Amino acid sequence: MDAVPLLDSYTEMTEILLPNDTNNLGRALGGAVLNWMDICGAVAAMRFASNQVVTASMDHVDFISPIELGEVVVVEGYVFSTGRTSLDVKVDVHAENPRSDQPDRETTSSFFTFVALDEDGNTTGVPEVACPTDAEVDLRDGALAERRAQLEAVADRLD
Amino acid sequence: MDAVPLLDSYTEMTEILLPNDTNNLGRALGGAVLNWMDICGAVAAMRFASNQVVTASMDHVDFISPIELGEVVVVEGYVFSTGRTSLDVKVDVHAENPRSDQPDRETTSSFFTFVALDEDGNTTGVPEVACPTDAEVDLRDGALAERRAQLEAVADRLD
Amino acid sequence: MDAVPLLDSYTEMTEILLPNDTNNLGRALGGAVLNWMDICGAVAAMRFASNQVVTASMDHVDFISPIELGEVVVVEGYVFSTGRTSLDVKVDVHAENPRSDQPDRETTSSFFTFVALDEDGNTTGVPEVACPTDAEVDLRDGALAERRAQLEAVADRLD
Amino acid sequence: MDAVPLLDSYTEMTEILLPNDTNNLGRALGGAVLNWMDICGAVAAMRFASNQVVTASMDHVDFISPIELGEVVVVEGYVFSTGRTSLDVKVDVHAENPRSDQPDRETTSSFFTFVALDEDGNTTGVPEVACPTDAEVDLRDGALAERRAQLEAVADRLD
Amino acid sequence: MDAVPLLDSYTEMTEILLPNDTNNLGRALGGAVLNWMDICGAVAAMRFASNQVVTASMDHVDFISPIELGEVVVVEGYVFSTGRTSLDVKVDVHAENPRSDQPDRETTSSFFTFVALDEDGNTTGVPEVACPTDAEVDLRDGALAERRAQLEAVADRLD
Amino acid sequence: MDAVPLLDSYTEMTEILLPNDTNNLGRALGGAVLNWMDICGAVAAMRFASNQVVTASMDHVDFISPIELGEVVVVEGYVFSTGRTSLDVKVDVHAENPRSDQPDRETTSSFFTFVALDEDGNTTGVPEVACPTDAEVDLRDGALAERRAQLEAVADRLD
Repeated sequence: MDAVPLLDSYTEMTEILLPNDTNNLGRALGGAVLNWMDICGAVAAMRFASNQVVTASMDHVDFISPIELGEVVVVEGYVFSTGRTSLDVKVDVHAENPRSDQPDRETTSSFFTFVALDEDGNTTGVPEVACPTDAEVDLRDGALAERRAQLEAVADRLD
Repeated sequence: MDAVPLLDSYTEMTEILLPNDTNNLGRALGGAVLNWMDICGAVAAMRFASNQVVTASMDHVDFISPIELGEVVVVEGYVFSTGRTSLDVKVDVHAENPRSDQPDRETTSSFFTFVALDEDGNTTGVPEVACPTDAEVDLRDGALAERRAQLEAVADRLD
Repeated sequence: MDAVPLLDSYTEMTEILLPNDTNNLGRALGGAVLNWMDICGAVAAMRFASNQVVTASMDHVDFISPIELGEVVVVEGYVFSTGRTSLDVKVDVHAENPRSDQPDRETTSSFFTFVALDEDGNTTGVPEVACPTDAEVDLRDGALAERRAQLEAVADRLD
Repeated sequence: MDAVPLLDSYTEMTEILLPNDTNNLGRALGGAVLNWMDICGAVAAMRFASNQVVTASMDHVDFISPIELGEVVVVEGYVFSTGRTSLDVKVDVHAENPRSDQPDRETTSSFFTFVALDEDGNTTGVPEVACPTDAEVDLRDGALAERRAQLEAVADRLD
Repeated sequence: MDAVPLLDSYTEMTEILLPNDTNNLGRALGGAVLNWMDICGAVAAMRFASNQVVTASMDHVDFISPIELGEVVVVEGYVFSTGRTSLDVKVDVHAENPRSDQPDRETTSSFFTFVALDEDGNTTGVPEVACPTDAEVDLRDGALAERRAQLEAVADRLD
Repeated sequence: MDAVPLLDSYTEMTEILLPNDTNNLGRALGGAVLNWMDICGAVAAMRFASNQVVTASMDHVDFISPIELGEVVVVEGYVFSTGRTSLDVKVDVHAENPRSDQPDRETTSSFFTFVALDEDGNTTGVPEVACPTDAEVDLRDGALAERRAQLEAVADRLD
């Protein structure tokens, strides 16, 4: 199986935060954001694997800043590493208030692992990640470094 | 008010076609696609105007090819022209089957006009479209030519 | 195939505008209205054709007046013309504030074309429209005249 | 307060049964049908009272025949009797398979009582029901007789 | 078929009242509550019967107190009696304001009858209700007494 | 502020897996499960804090076994530890096939941290966890041990 370029998996979702995804304070429910992250990650993994995928795991998630009703939510995902049948996807979420000139705010970020399935629902092999451009090398290395930093932060909570 | 670059409005939405947006044949309901097109167009217009917008009109829409359950739907929109308080947005929809190597299929395309509103809900002025790059000139000219061709096709139905 | 009376296709939908179909200003999202129009038109076409249908196209739509949260939305549709396998449907949307004595407001109107499908998903023939009553003649002629007027308005934008 | 004609309250909703309102067997969930009945009854009561209403009670409901995925569901409601601040509404549900020539099937029917509220959320008076036409007299008398028959059927279960 | 303990059917659902299930006054729509009651009752019946079930009927429902946006809704159901292929389920709804120390409020309660279906969709036999503990005897006797009282209240409306 | 018993926060949600929360293979979307976990955890935290809460973070999640369309999903949560303004909640998800006699399957489990907010949206203090019964001691100790084990598993991935 030929390696597949990282950017073939790149996926961007844009949503408006509508009332049903907000709590009493008019802010995004955490679960609504997790739901979008999972869908974005799944599309990135499906595009990379050219197969159906299922979510195997999600890493630690910090909700850094709230998202307000009516704001635009942008979710981005790409595959940065693969195993024999699994795909690691970095998913980032930004919020922007289209009625202001403030820059986008990072709201959360995490790493998902998906497993590829064939048409009968059995796990199936996936290609390796190719990084033919400098941009792809940077995206891959950034994801690996950030994931390691996040694992270390989790490990630090042990003490 | 300074002109705003066309690409500041560029918006991409990615969705998976889930069961509730399909009919008995497992294909996308036309109304679900129209709903996504309206949201994508509204985000493009809000980003350009830095204000709330409302939909004023939508041009003729042809549904060229069906979208199947589980396919990935990509909706893209950008502002290509503005009036005093109105913004014209081109919205394109593609479908892709992530489990095949077939190229994306164009499924539909249309033009929306939105009106910008200030915080009190009154119409308010919008910037002109700037095209500082060749890519933006091409996007704007392509939209204007395609809209004219679509209007001519409508006019031809009069005879 | 015997001609089918126009009124056999007549369809009326009533909805309350709930929060999730509104924007920040508490007004109906254009896409929610387009979605209801498509479903109403599809029911009218299915009733007429006694078959499954898919949306082939939708004509220009103007959003004339906003719909407020909690208002009642009434969508009406009927088949006024058919081709070999296609059905033309007029769809009108009115809004009413049930807590006032103001008359209903026209909010939007358009024309859809649907294509009839048999059980295998292939296009299939549809009956002609019969107008056995004066009311049906008026509905058909009104739709034809209004569609022509709308096409002319579109053609006028060419100059 | 002047009496209001029964037909001023008449409300018709049309829905297509989509996947999310079905169970494993592809048939309508009872709760989805109850939800539509409540909304239809509330619109009928709001139209009659020209005020906001809340559901006070619903009578016994029998689910007579199942509704299949993709069928058209028609819900009809009208006010047939009022108290000082309350409105009694008859709600009927029919299903039709638009791809067959079979007549509509009655699927369920019940009686709701709503209470009218003013803008501050307090109960408020409602008009009496006028029946200026024979059709309205028949609708009112039919509702009263059917409700009595249903109460008697319930009372019979006591023995 | 061995009798099944009443508590094997016990089901508890917890929901937050989100915007889309509220009316203009920010209170729960009656239909949303009926929908949750039907799902809770169906799970209780499925757990008891170890089979798919469909809703056959629902008894009279009084809406005793409103539920506000953001409140927690708790729905409880259990099977208290069975026929040859039918199951009687008591369903109770409470609301709680998690931001106050007030006790839960009873908001509504009713009785559903479900029918068990086998894998082909045909009605199928169900076990009898066993009450091996005093708590189960009390739950069953309470349900029977409350249902009888409710039937008597309905019968009283006949005079 | 008096310590609050752990069991005051105990929350159980029951859902049926409906079509819109499934993928092409008729299995639960990971994001739908994450969404339910977040709501269940938030209710547990609100009950404990008697205040509004927002999601601050969620720990690593493994999806152990798939959930099939029509299965019953049970989500349980309780607060096992608190900081000055934060609450740690353990959330477990089980699936059961009501049409079989197989025992429930554990499908996933994780730990959330919520932050309590007062009526103005500012962070506010929360009580300590009391464990007046042996059952509560066991639940708290089990959560602490499992969380530590999960952190260690994450730390092991560093090598």
